[in-house]
Amino acid sequence: MTIKAVVFDAYGTLYDTQSVAAVTEAEFPGYGEIVTQIWRIKQLEYTWLRSLMRRYQDFSVITRDSLAYTLKVLGLKCDSDVFERIMEKYLHLDLYPDATATLAAMKDRKLAILSNGSTGMLTTLVRNSGLDRVLDATISVDSTKIFKPSPDAYSLIETVLGVPPAEVLFVSSNPWDACGARAFGLNVAWIERVTPEAMALACIKSDLMAPLTMFKAIRTQMDELGLEPDYRIQALAELPKLVAQHP
Amino acid sequence: MTIKAVVFDAYGTLYDTQSVAAVTEAEFPGYGEIVTQIWRIKQLEYTWLRSLMRRYQDFSVITRDSLAYTLKVLGLKCDSDVFERIMEKYLHLDLYPDATATLAAMKDRKLAILSNGSTGMLTTLVRNSGLDRVLDATISVDSTKIFKPSPDAYSLIETVLGVPPAEVLFVSSNPWDACGARAFGLNVAWIERVTPEAMALACIKSDLMAPLTMFKAIRTQMDELGLEPDYRIQALAELPKLVAQHP
Repeated sequence: MTIKAVVFDAYGTLYDTQSVAAVTEAEFPGYGEIVTQIWRIKQLEYTWLRSLMRRYQDFSVITRDSLAYTLKVLGLKCDSDVFERIMEKYLHLDLYPDATATLAAMKDRKLAILSNGSTGMLTTLVRNSGLDRVLDATISVDSTKIFKPSPDAYSLIETVLGVPPAEVLFVSSNPWDACGARAFGLNVAWIERVTPEAMALACIKSDLMAPLTMFKAIRTQMDELGLEPDYRIQALAELPKLVAQHP
Repeated sequence: MTIKAVVFDAYGTLYDTQSVAAVTEAEFPGYGEIVTQIWRIKQLEYTWLRSLMRRYQDFSVITRDSLAYTLKVLGLKCDSDVFERIMEKYLHLDLYPDATATLAAMKDRKLAILSNGSTGMLTTLVRNSGLDRVLDATISVDSTKIFKPSPDAYSLIETVLGVPPAEVLFVSSNPWDACGARAFGLNVAWIERVTPEAMALACIKSDLMAPLTMFKAIRTQMDELGLEPDYRIQALAELPKLVAQHP
């Protein structure tokens, strides 16, 4: 197999969505973690529900609506300045520490992002984090009006890069995304940032009650969807070696 | 408006999916609640993800896969007898206490279930609970090979009952389901079993850590999907009076 392009999911894969917790905690002391987790759960749910209902709205609307839901259900009130400050963090998410060096080490391949994010959100995020200097393309699902894991979303890779699925390595830490890409026919490397052993250890009863544990429990382990990623890695930093084996 | 048919969601609306907790707690002491909540979250996710991926499997497969996921992520092991005993509960879920009397009080209308459940699961569940004596039809989404909230699923009501959407009252306690039905054009009564006041009260910080609170937080409040149910009720028992106003 030849890998001509390496395509990355953005949120949770290159960018740490958990990094919003610093802002939510600053605005709502004691509630930072629970706001962060519920927000992310509802954000993903809304992408899937709107896709199925055929009521697409772009990811910036969904991110806003899911934050509004989260604050309402927790009985938290804030003025629009605070709301916008929290939203703003989505345009300045932290990169995972190994992201930039990993991309730089594979510049002999086409490099791109394929993300649920809106074009506006992604352009700003990529520029703010400096990834615009190494990426050949930043692809938003927006033109398909349907979110991942719809095959329509993954088909944009070939449309934009001109590389067929069999020659693409798709990289995601989101199990549902890895499954969707695999179902479409891409080669998939799944980043398993939390090992089953660490997860089981966190799930001893005394820790079960933490929102972050609950979130990890529903989102970290490979899903039971009848699909398996081609590669399992623990960190982005493992990619250059893997890719080098497929010149 | 004339209501010629009243159509119910099954899981969480007529039948209490939380009633599996008694069985999960008996099999995994101390873990009953967390197993119940993760199982239900993943069960719903898998219906949406498989629908979007176009990898439909019926609800019995999804219920089995989501239970397998749940036990694996929590590091819980069991033999196949125990696994089957837990699964079996889905065929004997408790009815909400007002379900049977509510249905009996509206027998001048067509009465049906429209559910994600497979035909086999629903037939058994309806017979085990005695609702086969009052329902005109039990409709499974199975023939469309896609789950709610896809419009294809809701279209089965007219196909089976011969009643157009404008003359159907659809009843669900699941916010996403109420939104999906509304988007399709059905009249919708949403059962808000937990009021926002009670929810906000449960979400004082000291209670936030309970899995059931977390689950309620993501699943009980009306979703921010740009749609509103036509009616908000607190219990099934309010339906006969509401329906009587639309002869």
